Amino acid sequence: MTEQKPRLYREMTWPEIAEAARADIPVAIPIGSTEQHGHHLPVCTDWLIPEKLLEEASRRTDLVVGQFVPFGYRSRPGSGGGQHIPGTLSLRATTYIALLEDILSELKRAGFRNIVLYNWHYENSGFIYEPAFLISEKHPDLKILVMEDANPDFTPDRQQAIWPDGFPGLALEHAAVIETSLLLHHAPHLVRAEHIKADAPERVVNHDVLPIDTRMSTTTGTLSSPEAASAEKGKMLTEWMVDRLVAILDEEFGDRRLTV
Amino acid sequence: MTEQKPRLYREMTWPEIAEAARADIPVAIPIGSTEQHGHHLPVCTDWLIPEKLLEEASRRTDLVVGQFVPFGYRSRPGSGGGQHIPGTLSLRATTYIALLEDILSELKRAGFRNIVLYNWHYENSGFIYEPAFLISEKHPDLKILVMEDANPDFTPDRQQAIWPDGFPGLALEHAAVIETSLLLHHAPHLVRAEHIKADAPERVVNHDVLPIDTRMSTTTGTLSSPEAASAEKGKMLTEWMVDRLVAILDEEFGDRRLTV
Amino acid sequence: MTEQKPRLYREMTWPEIAEAARADIPVAIPIGSTEQHGHHLPVCTDWLIPEKLLEEASRRTDLVVGQFVPFGYRSRPGSGGGQHIPGTLSLRATTYIALLEDILSELKRAGFRNIVLYNWHYENSGFIYEPAFLISEKHPDLKILVMEDANPDFTPDRQQAIWPDGFPGLALEHAAVIETSLLLHHAPHLVRAEHIKADAPERVVNHDVLPIDTRMSTTTGTLSSPEAASAEKGKMLTEWMVDRLVAILDEEFGDRRLTV
Amino acid sequence: MTEQKPRLYREMTWPEIAEAARADIPVAIPIGSTEQHGHHLPVCTDWLIPEKLLEEASRRTDLVVGQFVPFGYRSRPGSGGGQHIPGTLSLRATTYIALLEDILSELKRAGFRNIVLYNWHYENSGFIYEPAFLISEKHPDLKILVMEDANPDFTPDRQQAIWPDGFPGLALEHAAVIETSLLLHHAPHLVRAEHIKADAPERVVNHDVLPIDTRMSTTTGTLSSPEAASAEKGKMLTEWMVDRLVAILDEEFGDRRLTV
Amino acid sequence: MTEQKPRLYREMTWPEIAEAARADIPVAIPIGSTEQHGHHLPVCTDWLIPEKLLEEASRRTDLVVGQFVPFGYRSRPGSGGGQHIPGTLSLRATTYIALLEDILSELKRAGFRNIVLYNWHYENSGFIYEPAFLISEKHPDLKILVMEDANPDFTPDRQQAIWPDGFPGLALEHAAVIETSLLLHHAPHLVRAEHIKADAPERVVNHDVLPIDTRMSTTTGTLSSPEAASAEKGKMLTEWMVDRLVAILDEEFGDRRLTV
Amino acid sequence: MTEQKPRLYREMTWPEIAEAARADIPVAIPIGSTEQHGHHLPVCTDWLIPEKLLEEASRRTDLVVGQFVPFGYRSRPGSGGGQHIPGTLSLRATTYIALLEDILSELKRAGFRNIVLYNWHYENSGFIYEPAFLISEKHPDLKILVMEDANPDFTPDRQQAIWPDGFPGLALEHAAVIETSLLLHHAPHLVRAEHIKADAPERVVNHDVLPIDTRMSTTTGTLSSPEAASAEKGKMLTEWMVDRLVAILDEEFGDRRLTV
Repeated sequence: MTEQKPRLYREMTWPEIAEAARADIPVAIPIGSTEQHGHHLPVCTDWLIPEKLLEEASRRTDLVVGQFVPFGYRSRPGSGGGQHIPGTLSLRATTYIALLEDILSELKRAGFRNIVLYNWHYENSGFIYEPAFLISEKHPDLKILVMEDANPDFTPDRQQAIWPDGFPGLALEHAAVIETSLLLHHAPHLVRAEHIKADAPERVVNHDVLPIDTRMSTTTGTLSSPEAASAEKGKMLTEWMVDRLVAILDEEFGDRRLTV
Repeated sequence: MTEQKPRLYREMTWPEIAEAARADIPVAIPIGSTEQHGHHLPVCTDWLIPEKLLEEASRRTDLVVGQFVPFGYRSRPGSGGGQHIPGTLSLRATTYIALLEDILSELKRAGFRNIVLYNWHYENSGFIYEPAFLISEKHPDLKILVMEDANPDFTPDRQQAIWPDGFPGLALEHAAVIETSLLLHHAPHLVRAEHIKADAPERVVNHDVLPIDTRMSTTTGTLSSPEAASAEKGKMLTEWMVDRLVAILDEEFGDRRLTV
Repeated sequence: MTEQKPRLYREMTWPEIAEAARADIPVAIPIGSTEQHGHHLPVCTDWLIPEKLLEEASRRTDLVVGQFVPFGYRSRPGSGGGQHIPGTLSLRATTYIALLEDILSELKRAGFRNIVLYNWHYENSGFIYEPAFLISEKHPDLKILVMEDANPDFTPDRQQAIWPDGFPGLALEHAAVIETSLLLHHAPHLVRAEHIKADAPERVVNHDVLPIDTRMSTTTGTLSSPEAASAEKGKMLTEWMVDRLVAILDEEFGDRRLTV
Repeated sequence: MTEQKPRLYREMTWPEIAEAARADIPVAIPIGSTEQHGHHLPVCTDWLIPEKLLEEASRRTDLVVGQFVPFGYRSRPGSGGGQHIPGTLSLRATTYIALLEDILSELKRAGFRNIVLYNWHYENSGFIYEPAFLISEKHPDLKILVMEDANPDFTPDRQQAIWPDGFPGLALEHAAVIETSLLLHHAPHLVRAEHIKADAPERVVNHDVLPIDTRMSTTTGTLSSPEAASAEKGKMLTEWMVDRLVAILDEEFGDRRLTV
Repeated sequence: MTEQKPRLYREMTWPEIAEAARADIPVAIPIGSTEQHGHHLPVCTDWLIPEKLLEEASRRTDLVVGQFVPFGYRSRPGSGGGQHIPGTLSLRATTYIALLEDILSELKRAGFRNIVLYNWHYENSGFIYEPAFLISEKHPDLKILVMEDANPDFTPDRQQAIWPDGFPGLALEHAAVIETSLLLHHAPHLVRAEHIKADAPERVVNHDVLPIDTRMSTTTGTLSSPEAASAEKGKMLTEWMVDRLVAILDEEFGDRRLTV
Repeated sequence: MTEQKPRLYREMTWPEIAEAARADIPVAIPIGSTEQHGHHLPVCTDWLIPEKLLEEASRRTDLVVGQFVPFGYRSRPGSGGGQHIPGTLSLRATTYIALLEDILSELKRAGFRNIVLYNWHYENSGFIYEPAFLISEKHPDLKILVMEDANPDFTPDRQQAIWPDGFPGLALEHAAVIETSLLLHHAPHLVRAEHIKADAPERVVNHDVLPIDTRMSTTTGTLSSPEAASAEKGKMLTEWMVDRLVAILDEEFGDRRLTV
């Protein structure tokens, strides 16, 4: 298949959007957050990445890249550093659910039948399923994909390629190798390379404590080392993620689109 | 005053944001919508414009351009064409209020004391005052400016410069001369020049009818003619709007900032 | 057409209401507030006036004057003096929307198909459209008129008749010539004539500040001078407003009523 | 004590209200409903009565008669006839609670420290306690009386005086002897005397059934016979109710008022 | 009819529940609270009792005993001692309504058409009717019984049997003879017999005061004397209550069940 | 340490609860769901297990076992079978959050300073953190542990002991070896041994589809085979889980309790 011009919802006119909806082209909403990403990455990291990945996907399959959601549910220490760090703009659970409900309702009104919620911010899990469920109850003719986890399968080979010194686990990959590499590939001007440095929480456990136990976060906000990041890895990761995404889109919506 | 490098919240790291907050620099949130803007303008028009205007202002006064809000309250026929047009992504009133409440709370948590809600989407009026009021009750140490109307004073001279054939009134300026000119100046690649053409509602009254009386909207979504738009007018309008904005910021926050 | 006996919902029995609904007679809800109106007018001013105007209209056209809503959304300094003045009883936005939603639902249940929301309190704008929209989505067979602004067209002649010394603009007409004249005409015993006196805000701008900047309000609560008010003007204003109202009702509902 | 001029909140100006609040005079809110009251009484019966009773009380003790609440919680068959009868305008529970919360907040803001919620509509029970509780948690300096039941003690003598043919029980006194008598005394022009006639539900049980079992209501909406009503009884009932009310007010607020 | 094995929802598997729903067997939800019950009864008293009563009923008629609701609306001094006593776990009104709405929705989804809300906690009144009403509007095919009061008719004979020294009134029967007897019969190991002793509020009135007037409650939390309680009375009360319950179930659902 | 008598909140009287709170003994709330657990386990499985585990823990450390929460957030196909299976009683996200908020508020009111939210139903994740966060903001003196995952570390040795034929992954352990073993140990009378049999979803992916793709669930509701379950394994699992729990409690609250 030849590469297509990406379709970004935000840059389209309404007749162009209406036309895509009429053709049953899926629309995929990049869902992220405005969240601290250490001393070296901008707070837009979590919504920039899923938009870029979907933009790549839209070159390879019929897809409208929906208006991104630049806000996320509350950052938690073990995955995003936590709400004690300034700069993060988190929504309450109830706000989050209502916001996605409204966006889904409006996409339905525009005529879309195939919708993807493509999430990059771990803490959003659950808060994406709920609005999708509520809208699905009202509009069972919609097919909604809830992709709360954008990561591909990290096979041993892939782990070796990205973390030659050992895989720290995805939980601690906040502002670390994956995200730094992706930004070095997609938006290098936004990376403060001089501030890339290792960090690690003093305490890693499987439960949460409130008020926040800052030992479960770090002073920089980076949860493991981003030092091994590179633009090349960003390109590689992009390919793996987009491959997976395109495969899922084709499997789930292949027979629900008018055009391929 | 020499021109400064604009500060865009979304591109900043958290320590940079924390530093700006500590210096009591105001943060101004561009508030817009994702809304149909005729056959010639993209649906992001309403959030792109206030971000661009604030970006200009931030070159001239200490200001952080906050994360824009790309969603608006329901489009109404007499000002935005109305909810029957596909592509528009509107929020319910309750969602809208909750969303802005959360953003304000988080900016307070980050340490900001001076906040501006800078709105470009007419229908948001009221729904911006309410969250500002609610947060102000909780945090009376904040100073919040609610600018529900971004327009400058259109003196007769200015009216003559922009609408030499007669001023149609601001109510009908949806996707017309002002917005088309601003996009031609700030983001010309997003304007479909070939689709610029005049339109007008069949019926203009001072009340609303539900279900929507489509005679109060238009088939293109443009409420009056954008034909007289130009990049030059966009530049001129930008100057007037930024002048007014900088004057208000300096008047309201002059004595609440550490640095000028 | 000969004058009819006014129909006040609150004074009707349920079989009388059911009969009116069956005949598709429109019901118009007077929407106001309990709000300070200076030293000379009672806090019921904003709901008394629209009820009186609708009562007049109901003498001239088939109309049920609905149960008035004696509460309004938060008073704002530039239009109603603001929430720092005691006596005003304002509702939160969410309460307001829910209240009107319920009233509309119940009128639908009673069998009414033609409903008017007739507002006299400026700050209610938007918070009336939202519940009307929500109910219209559920019951598209209803026709709902949202009249957020009860004012007639103030032609130069009319401006001259009411404000011979110059028109201060409607924004500042809080507890001033229009409202004082209307009360002198409709409820003179409620006007404290001895307290009528001019006042004006120190600062008139187009944005809001929170916490409230009291210079944008006044110490009396009157936003411009009521001294030129008179019962005669109240009669005249009533005629203009009722003329406009009857014309709109006939235009919008003429073909949806069983009887004229 | 000599009789005082009644103080009706709605007819007062804001400085008069502020003055009453400063003197710690209690404010009592008449809480009712807009509800069917048979073929002979208007739908305003439930808010007219408590306002009239409080007005009487305010002649005998320091008291501001608050802005009445003309809406009630859903009518139930066994006490108000039920939601299947047109004309009744009921609120959802959540709306009701929010509405009273806001009114209480605003009275607190006005400076009142002594507040009475005086209810005439049986179904409101619980939905009045909840907002009072919520506001009391926020403002423990307020003293709030929740009088969900306005009835006096019906001693055998009193029962004999009002229902010489036998007391049917208060539960069935909807639009019957008490309410009809009170309206004949306080607002005789609103009583359709020609429509007064006996009625009774076919089925009287202690549980509810949904959807409504209409045998638990009546076709007229009157739950027992109003035929024994008279203006004299209305006067007598008023005295008993006002006596009780004044006694409670004096007991609860005697030492919290500046003036008696 | 021979006695059946009780059906407890919580101990059933999903195919067993689905089978009962398919047979249109009613499901009755025991609704209670976690509330102080003096020094001698456990806080689970209010949900244990209705579950035990329904369990008895399910031996005699086709009935599924639903999952009990162990939480109640706020305890009030005159009926449950009040919210100032530790140990009580009350829900806000809005939470309570939402909780029951969801449970009703899910029972509908499981296929049940006949549902009983069987309440033992007085303060829940109203807050049970509202969710039942909301669900009934959505699903008018359901038949929902709202039994906010589980008490049988206390005829003079019965009063004499239970309170030989005089009936104190049901309002004060909190943690007193009825509940203590029922626990002595159904769960004697949970009764601290050594702590059974008389108590009585200093002040008994018909209105509420906030903040709570502790004279309207007691120091033990028992509102009248439990000293006359016995297991025999518990057995007797159980029979009366179950008789009434079975009679109502048979009357209301007799023709809506597939099996008897 | 010698074994203590377990403290079950629900079986305690209010003075006993108040005494425990005064001693700063932690209270741990068993959080579960009412959810299908295949053909062989009852729907109470998810709240019975955490209560039993906490009861064991309370024999070994100072702990009050809180009132269990027998309701959960919506079942999802990949972890609980999904909302299409009858019998499951799930709450909406907003209800769930409100319910836990209220319980936490009330425990705070009772005087507890150390609270554990101990969850057994995977889908509750996030919806437990949110209410804990909200309450922690209001009451920063509380220390709240959010244990959304009750599982211990499954070391290779432990995996071998429980799943000698290979570990299927925790995601599919719904109504399988772990839960069946635990019920065989703690409540063998509730296990329908004759219905224990293997099952597996046809499709296992990392995203969700709405409306539910039933291939991601199973016809029995069991997501992998429970055939290898045994009471012995239930005992072993209980020890591991209680060991972990006691260790965490001692580490987090060791210095916040008055007594050990």
